[in-house]
Amino acid sequence: MSSHPVVALTSPSSWALVEDKFSPFAKETLAKLITFVQEECIPAARVAHAQLPTEYERRWKTVIPIIEELKVKAKKLGLWNLFLSKAHYPEYGVPLTNLEYAVMAEVLGRGGHMASEAVNCAAPDTGNMEVLARYGSAEQKKKWLVPLLNGEIRSSFSMTERFVASSDATNIRTSIRREGNEIVINGHKWWISGAGDIRNRLHLVMGKSDASNPDTHAQQSIVIVPSDAPGVKIIRPMTVFGYDDAPEGHCEVIYENVRVPLSNLVLGWGKGFEIIQGRLGPGRIHHCMRSIGMAQMALDLMIQRVTDPTRKTFGKYLFEHGTVVADIAQSRAEIEGARLLVYSAALQIDKFKAKGALKEIGIAKFVVPSMALQVVDRAIQAFGAEGVSQDQFLASAWAGLRTLRLADGPDAVHIQQIGQRELKRAAALTKQAAETKKKENLLMEKNGFKAQL
Amino acid sequence: MSSHPVVALTSPSSWALVEDKFSPFAKETLAKLITFVQEECIPAARVAHAQLPTEYERRWKTVIPIIEELKVKAKKLGLWNLFLSKAHYPEYGVPLTNLEYAVMAEVLGRGGHMASEAVNCAAPDTGNMEVLARYGSAEQKKKWLVPLLNGEIRSSFSMTERFVASSDATNIRTSIRREGNEIVINGHKWWISGAGDIRNRLHLVMGKSDASNPDTHAQQSIVIVPSDAPGVKIIRPMTVFGYDDAPEGHCEVIYENVRVPLSNLVLGWGKGFEIIQGRLGPGRIHHCMRSIGMAQMALDLMIQRVTDPTRKTFGKYLFEHGTVVADIAQSRAEIEGARLLVYSAALQIDKFKAKGALKEIGIAKFVVPSMALQVVDRAIQAFGAEGVSQDQFLASAWAGLRTLRLADGPDAVHIQQIGQRELKRAAALTKQAAETKKKENLLMEKNGFKAQL
Amino acid sequence: MSSHPVVALTSPSSWALVEDKFSPFAKETLAKLITFVQEECIPAARVAHAQLPTEYERRWKTVIPIIEELKVKAKKLGLWNLFLSKAHYPEYGVPLTNLEYAVMAEVLGRGGHMASEAVNCAAPDTGNMEVLARYGSAEQKKKWLVPLLNGEIRSSFSMTERFVASSDATNIRTSIRREGNEIVINGHKWWISGAGDIRNRLHLVMGKSDASNPDTHAQQSIVIVPSDAPGVKIIRPMTVFGYDDAPEGHCEVIYENVRVPLSNLVLGWGKGFEIIQGRLGPGRIHHCMRSIGMAQMALDLMIQRVTDPTRKTFGKYLFEHGTVVADIAQSRAEIEGARLLVYSAALQIDKFKAKGALKEIGIAKFVVPSMALQVVDRAIQAFGAEGVSQDQFLASAWAGLRTLRLADGPDAVHIQQIGQRELKRAAALTKQAAETKKKENLLMEKNGFKAQL
Amino acid sequence: MSSHPVVALTSPSSWALVEDKFSPFAKETLAKLITFVQEECIPAARVAHAQLPTEYERRWKTVIPIIEELKVKAKKLGLWNLFLSKAHYPEYGVPLTNLEYAVMAEVLGRGGHMASEAVNCAAPDTGNMEVLARYGSAEQKKKWLVPLLNGEIRSSFSMTERFVASSDATNIRTSIRREGNEIVINGHKWWISGAGDIRNRLHLVMGKSDASNPDTHAQQSIVIVPSDAPGVKIIRPMTVFGYDDAPEGHCEVIYENVRVPLSNLVLGWGKGFEIIQGRLGPGRIHHCMRSIGMAQMALDLMIQRVTDPTRKTFGKYLFEHGTVVADIAQSRAEIEGARLLVYSAALQIDKFKAKGALKEIGIAKFVVPSMALQVVDRAIQAFGAEGVSQDQFLASAWAGLRTLRLADGPDAVHIQQIGQRELKRAAALTKQAAETKKKENLLMEKNGFKAQL
Repeated sequence: MSSHPVVALTSPSSWALVEDKFSPFAKETLAKLITFVQEECIPAARVAHAQLPTEYERRWKTVIPIIEELKVKAKKLGLWNLFLSKAHYPEYGVPLTNLEYAVMAEVLGRGGHMASEAVNCAAPDTGNMEVLARYGSAEQKKKWLVPLLNGEIRSSFSMTERFVASSDATNIRTSIRREGNEIVINGHKWWISGAGDIRNRLHLVMGKSDASNPDTHAQQSIVIVPSDAPGVKIIRPMTVFGYDDAPEGHCEVIYENVRVPLSNLVLGWGKGFEIIQGRLGPGRIHHCMRSIGMAQMALDLMIQRVTDPTRKTFGKYLFEHGTVVADIAQSRAEIEGARLLVYSAALQIDKFKAKGALKEIGIAKFVVPSMALQVVDRAIQAFGAEGVSQDQFLASAWAGLRTLRLADGPDAVHIQQIGQRELKRAAALTKQAAETKKKENLLMEKNGFKAQL
Repeated sequence: MSSHPVVALTSPSSWALVEDKFSPFAKETLAKLITFVQEECIPAARVAHAQLPTEYERRWKTVIPIIEELKVKAKKLGLWNLFLSKAHYPEYGVPLTNLEYAVMAEVLGRGGHMASEAVNCAAPDTGNMEVLARYGSAEQKKKWLVPLLNGEIRSSFSMTERFVASSDATNIRTSIRREGNEIVINGHKWWISGAGDIRNRLHLVMGKSDASNPDTHAQQSIVIVPSDAPGVKIIRPMTVFGYDDAPEGHCEVIYENVRVPLSNLVLGWGKGFEIIQGRLGPGRIHHCMRSIGMAQMALDLMIQRVTDPTRKTFGKYLFEHGTVVADIAQSRAEIEGARLLVYSAALQIDKFKAKGALKEIGIAKFVVPSMALQVVDRAIQAFGAEGVSQDQFLASAWAGLRTLRLADGPDAVHIQQIGQRELKRAAALTKQAAETKKKENLLMEKNGFKAQL
Repeated sequence: MSSHPVVALTSPSSWALVEDKFSPFAKETLAKLITFVQEECIPAARVAHAQLPTEYERRWKTVIPIIEELKVKAKKLGLWNLFLSKAHYPEYGVPLTNLEYAVMAEVLGRGGHMASEAVNCAAPDTGNMEVLARYGSAEQKKKWLVPLLNGEIRSSFSMTERFVASSDATNIRTSIRREGNEIVINGHKWWISGAGDIRNRLHLVMGKSDASNPDTHAQQSIVIVPSDAPGVKIIRPMTVFGYDDAPEGHCEVIYENVRVPLSNLVLGWGKGFEIIQGRLGPGRIHHCMRSIGMAQMALDLMIQRVTDPTRKTFGKYLFEHGTVVADIAQSRAEIEGARLLVYSAALQIDKFKAKGALKEIGIAKFVVPSMALQVVDRAIQAFGAEGVSQDQFLASAWAGLRTLRLADGPDAVHIQQIGQRELKRAAALTKQAAETKKKENLLMEKNGFKAQL
Repeated sequence: MSSHPVVALTSPSSWALVEDKFSPFAKETLAKLITFVQEECIPAARVAHAQLPTEYERRWKTVIPIIEELKVKAKKLGLWNLFLSKAHYPEYGVPLTNLEYAVMAEVLGRGGHMASEAVNCAAPDTGNMEVLARYGSAEQKKKWLVPLLNGEIRSSFSMTERFVASSDATNIRTSIRREGNEIVINGHKWWISGAGDIRNRLHLVMGKSDASNPDTHAQQSIVIVPSDAPGVKIIRPMTVFGYDDAPEGHCEVIYENVRVPLSNLVLGWGKGFEIIQGRLGPGRIHHCMRSIGMAQMALDLMIQRVTDPTRKTFGKYLFEHGTVVADIAQSRAEIEGARLLVYSAALQIDKFKAKGALKEIGIAKFVVPSMALQVVDRAIQAFGAEGVSQDQFLASAWAGLRTLRLADGPDAVHIQQIGQRELKRAAALTKQAAETKKKENLLMEKNGFKAQL
């Protein structure tokens, strides 16, 4: 394994910690994936960029040819839907554990958004496929899941709302109501990733079907809305810093009296909250590992830049500055620690499902993006103005990573939740401390000293 | 003074520290400026944005009408060229000290790039006007300076080079050579701010006219190049975190056998380094104060956001979270400390010119952008996804501030220079320590103890 | 002024900002103080240390002779009770503003605890003198204040309680009750600074005289308790890290049925809270400026250490390492910014009394100790193991500074209060934003665009 | 395993990552050790403290009885010399890997210095036993190693010198020279841990035996000096933030014409450098894991403190403050990440010896102490003044951890070395980048775009 370029170049020691938990199939797949990303995806990035028109209108009508070519290659290589664990989805899944896929997700992160799409492991499709595979009806699976698994169509998850603090899902206002054999949807969403893509065929829309239910977690339902249903209005793409992320986009979307058949309800009335709970755990780990891949890539670029023999300032090469060397050491250490935290969370999911790994997932969720942002920021600084420009992947990587501190719950929410979970250890700790105190006092008296209160 | 909205709302205490250093004229001008920015510029921002086309080609052919209207108003109010201190430029300047203008520059920072342009105080024109006012020939002044002072044309300062570590100016490769009565310029620059603007009429181009001069600081010259001279090729605008900053842009520019008359040489052959040295000090302070204005604006927005009564998550308003309150307190303290550092540097320039204030300017240069980035980042976090989008000024402010850690010397260069300057205190400190030691030993012996080595 | 050693060596620019706010008397006093601290106090530190026995019992029975000698000299020079502003205490005070004394307090900080004591400006006596000067009866002043002002006796302020979260003063449990013509005090305090000193003559004890008063801020009273009153039991000195701070100490003290005459009540029944409120503002500023003096001293020592020609590791002098230079630059900038924040707060007190300067005082209170700890920590790192030892002032300075993040309200309390104060700006900001929005919409319509909600 | 108290209470997920790498013996030993530390060592701490006299002279003549009792118990339980890996020391060692012992060292860290001593795993004896086991002659082993292994005597490692930048071992000045059948030692050392202990029998003294050898790493030798040899002068104990760490102490020691037989030379002339190289790797990991144990203990205490129902301030329990909860979450995440880094380094040592794990060891060395200091500092803040006092282990833990940023190479040295090692990846990365570029250009041309330089 250590002969594979990425692993050998980066962290043999973290690999040593998990190697014996990898199946032969996983090792082989990882090796193929490393080669595919390095040899095929990374060199294709500039072409993909060139194939995206600068003209505004045409940007949103483009299917980038080279990505479609990569998809064909990946499928042939068996590098497809790797995110979908057979253990949880026996019918569709790939025999990989969460830990095994986590290591692969870092490799995908090195290849940017494109590599993930090439192997059909790109958000938000991944989460949507999980939802449909777990909760979809036979008809829903046939109609939506199969083409998604085949990479023929794309999809959106439509949850975040404008004018609403929707990081708390109980605040959602979109209305989903039954009218005869139909469901009528009205709502104002934004940041709907992928909604600008002409390949998009469906939105999984979260809304309130029973707003007065005293159980605030039973008010929500999720409905499949075809992208071309009358009343689905794509208002505009939101920009992330200055990026519009065409041709997929993160769009403002209004659902105005959109009507779908009853059979488009997912799982059942009032099951919206349950569905999103199940959707989140592993997806967060994937995001984290891709982020680590991006951080590692940034560090690798930084190392190349500071050793570039043509870059000498004030009589010194960049790598001769102690502060530059320190930045590199810090970055290495931070990436390493974060990587191990995510491995640990992934293993925890494998052992106890997402529910039994909430603390580990939460820690990874708030630690990794901040870490990666810092590493990328240092790399930007090493590159000078070029670092903030379109000529390096650093600035767009930074922008993408920055949204991860907000998406799927802002840092503060996760930090508070982890803190609350830690606080649950208080009772056991206090009990133990009382026992220790008792023993301590016995020992004090036995040794001729006064016991304490 | 304390009745003026901005000052009253923000920091009466920092105002107290400098109020008695303000002339009546400066106080009056500040008051007018606060009103102008608050009442005219800030409300015009959305119109300006709407007046900039989304279509790519047209973006670069636009003069935004509302900014031109604001310029007319500002000139009438006497809010014009405030950056140009009469003390240093008796012919053209305004009777304001650097400290007085520094306070005003914060106000301009609240109004974004637009407010600075409205009062003809926008970079890079400001620095260029200083260069021409100080070093220009009578002809150069008439032809270039006067229309710049009138806000009729715009300009670029063309220094940074592609493929070169040009933060060290001695690395510059652009060639400037005399051929008869002409000067011929060949070079490859990028990040030339304002070069995309159709109102741009001149580039001040820095290049090497005497590359083999043993004095590496006498190799450079600066030449005025008309923007429409044959051979001036605008290659493309560079983007800053996805922003193209149209219609001005930061462009890649190739000068290919560009020919200008000898009279376009500024100051003299080999004087390039001397010119840029003089150009930098006060301009850095202006950048800093605008950055502080942006940070203060971000904090003000954050305060509004977290007290928005419609934003409640998990049963609490945002301002009820202790971590949010702490973020606000930290931001306030950091802005305050940074503001005072820049005031102090500005006063130092007033007292001892830029040369006598290098340490203070350098400290401001590396402290302020990082501080402002942190404050803006916290505000982004409070705004959620909206914070990174086109609907708030935060993301574009962040991107602009991020470049300040690179432009005009990366942080590390300034930090090393400040450190070196501090180290010069070593000799005096060591001498004093030796005297103290001597006295200490005398006292020890006098009191019956053994003296030390 | 700039010829005075400390100011000239450290920060001419921050001096420039306040010089014109100094009276001639203040300038002269500052000059004398700088000389006194530099020439007399600093060289005496080692003698003082040598005069303190290592033997445990004797440590607590010592009056350090050299400090008494310094007191005599200081008094002769008119360097005495400088903390007590004539503006607020016309009868006893010195004609110095808070700002003027703030600058002097930094100088005292360079001289360690000893310099403050030498000029009779040492806590907790300073705060106690203020209390007695402001609220004491004629008899109390004669008996306690006058000898304190003369430096003949010392005192304690007895507030913090063991087993109680006494950073919230309403939690205090010590009972103070009237019995006939006497007051009876029972309580368990700790961290009573100065209580170990054999010169200590009085404790100002805070307790509850009316625990059932519905106004929780009217339950407390303060009583003067002579140190030798029966029932005053000094249990032990608390250590700060490993320091016992003999001969003064921070002691655990039990008051067991201590009886004092009614005339020992300060100000009146139920006035305890009012008294401590008045006691805190300027004292916090003094602490801050002494901390800045210590930070500056640490930086000065660090500069000497890293330029020590005998210290070369791995082929380089310490000052040749970029990270060392960066540490020095950062320290310089941080000290400078913090110093200006405290100047600003001191000026605010001069203008609007402590009550009108709560935000500025609070900012200084939480910013300065953390800043100083960081600077001292860097200096320790530069000194290697010697830095944590008894051979440098750094470790003990660190320990003392660390307590300032806890004493007088932990950081978090001040941060939350500053945040809350900032949040009060929300209403005005929101109002202004609404007006801006209105103007913006008018402008949008006027220019042919659609107005927004 | 998860039923064991410490592991169950702290980090089941990091345990999951390494559990399958533990032998049955290691699991059993870990379980016994957890019980021993929790049930025997921790409750004995207060007795140990009480058994140490406050009187200065007697402190240094004490053997603390309860520790000797614990040693007897530990030996019976087979919890003895666990640090000495049988794989490397077949004759004396215990069949534990470095990874297995690393997990145990965290447990020891919870029990403070005492627990390590109780199981005969306390520094500096551990490193000295490794040296003697690896390099000692049969006679040296019999005379010194055996009683050390039995816990009958103690020892010092005498390397650091006063007045010398001895973090660079080539700077050492102590002279070691042969005179006939004797070796004569002259030198001035300090920070010699354990030299104050009356059980101390030997110093391993590093000095220069061949100062003019052109190979600067062959100038040093190491000699065994009996503590009671004539000329060994213990000058004074150094203090660490006020702590003297009696009865062991970190002493200033002068060797004045100390004479020992030739047979006391370790390994051979000029082998000093080689010996210290071998001594360092695993010992650093042990320090790290004990530090993690201390950090975890601090977090556990903090959790108890902030949930203490008697601690309510300003109407809220401490755990109800969002900033407190955030501190706990951050601490948890930081401990977790650091723990995994050290596991990873320990595993690397097991796989490739210390030499093959230098990067991982170095990262752990500079990451862990800073992390632990931060966690302990937060706990101190939660405890208020009590946190800096003798009543909690926090302040002394902080002081001990602080020295780890200096001992055995200051942070900066390790950071620079890690950075340098990372930079060695530059060549491979640059080669790979060139290949990618080539492929990229082929793809560009194939797709009809222009290739780049």
